[in-house]
Amino acid sequence: MALRQRHPALDLRIWTRQPSSLGKVQNLLPGALATCSEEEAVRDADGIVLCTPVGSMPALAEKIRPHLREGSVVTDAGSVKGFVVDTVGRTLGSRFVGAHPMAGSEQTGIEAARADLFEGAPCILTPEDSTDPAALSATRSLWEQIGCQTIEMSAGEHDKSIARVSHLPHSVAAILVNAIDKHAPGSVKLAGGGYRDTTRVAAGAAAMWREILMENRTEVLAALAELRETCEEMESYLKKEDHAALEGFLAKAQEIRSAVR
Amino acid sequence: MALRQRHPALDLRIWTRQPSSLGKVQNLLPGALATCSEEEAVRDADGIVLCTPVGSMPALAEKIRPHLREGSVVTDAGSVKGFVVDTVGRTLGSRFVGAHPMAGSEQTGIEAARADLFEGAPCILTPEDSTDPAALSATRSLWEQIGCQTIEMSAGEHDKSIARVSHLPHSVAAILVNAIDKHAPGSVKLAGGGYRDTTRVAAGAAAMWREILMENRTEVLAALAELRETCEEMESYLKKEDHAALEGFLAKAQEIRSAVR
Repeated sequence: MALRQRHPALDLRIWTRQPSSLGKVQNLLPGALATCSEEEAVRDADGIVLCTPVGSMPALAEKIRPHLREGSVVTDAGSVKGFVVDTVGRTLGSRFVGAHPMAGSEQTGIEAARADLFEGAPCILTPEDSTDPAALSATRSLWEQIGCQTIEMSAGEHDKSIARVSHLPHSVAAILVNAIDKHAPGSVKLAGGGYRDTTRVAAGAAAMWREILMENRTEVLAALAELRETCEEMESYLKKEDHAALEGFLAKAQEIRSAVR
Repeated sequence: MALRQRHPALDLRIWTRQPSSLGKVQNLLPGALATCSEEEAVRDADGIVLCTPVGSMPALAEKIRPHLREGSVVTDAGSVKGFVVDTVGRTLGSRFVGAHPMAGSEQTGIEAARADLFEGAPCILTPEDSTDPAALSATRSLWEQIGCQTIEMSAGEHDKSIARVSHLPHSVAAILVNAIDKHAPGSVKLAGGGYRDTTRVAAGAAAMWREILMENRTEVLAALAELRETCEEMESYLKKEDHAALEGFLAKAQEIRSAVR
């Protein structure tokens, strides 16, 4: 939809696994080709964006490879990158550039599509040493044309950073909701802004998050262990009744958080 | 300010520790008496509300006790209740009714005062068996007149519930900010809505929260241990790659959180 707005004559093709979705795609993007055939979707295409769940991408890459034309570029929209670069990148070679557009909401499905979804959103690109510079340049241009601000880093650095800044907050929100439900379920009726803000993302789709967290589990496990360790640090100040250390701990968080928009 | 709106002729007196604040109080509430004398503030008063930090309340209760008239009622606005009821309640006896109006923001100081702050806010009252029924009824009426919805529970139940639904989210937000800052400081530049929502309350005043958490430390420590235990539960699903259990864990949190306004 975002590409169509900018390029009304562009030959757009949407692949979908379910035949029942073809009509919805056609309604959303009149003039685009909707198809369940991988071959039909990618044949002669200049650029291809894999937007399936991350776990489905390796098999999909194998399926489309025989039909890619010389010089075509492939990117993706998966929220973990080490796994994607290791599998899809190995299959498709130097034409593949991993990407993670950091846009979206807790909504899923084609009904949630919006032409302005990517406007101003960061998009992390994860090129390798072996990536074709022309493919990188074309991929950067594609994401920037639909409104993203691109940033480049390694797939490993991406997964480490995103585990901390995205997967960890989501995990913590779910842990907080479940811990309170287990030990003081009645207290939720007293919930104020603190509970509501801190747990908001726990309302996100469980199936999608299960997949994201599982794919990035090595880094998510490291992040959760770091969280428990920092929790124990705070507990030690409370146990020792060390007022100065506790206030220092809270003041540090206050300073860091206040600097974020 | 809220009382003045409803009772323009009410004899209002504001006690403040710092002489430098007297002018600000007078500007905010023209016609009220601003004073640094405990005796002047409480003499002949029908109702008294202690609004100092919780740690200062026991000494303040000792100071005002000799000057209270027969039948006067005392309540407070502290965010922990076991400590207040045990100390202030022992000093002032059956005329004291602990209260926790759950209103406010991360702002502090008289400059943040607003007449509509308590509109629709829950206010927990913590009467004891020994509380004078007339004092309870007058206290309930006071908080309801300025817009609160009163709820009654024991001081112990209050501290347990509030540790989970208010002190724990605040602690978790600070822990999350500090854990990420320690282990992946650069990742905050990638922060999206998940990080921002989940850590928002960590921007609150460190000194105020240090005091709140320290006063309620027994229950806060129990809540933090429960959080770590639930964190380990989630980690076990990731370690075992138990997709169904992880999705069940996330789906439970999704269901509970979605039911909160």
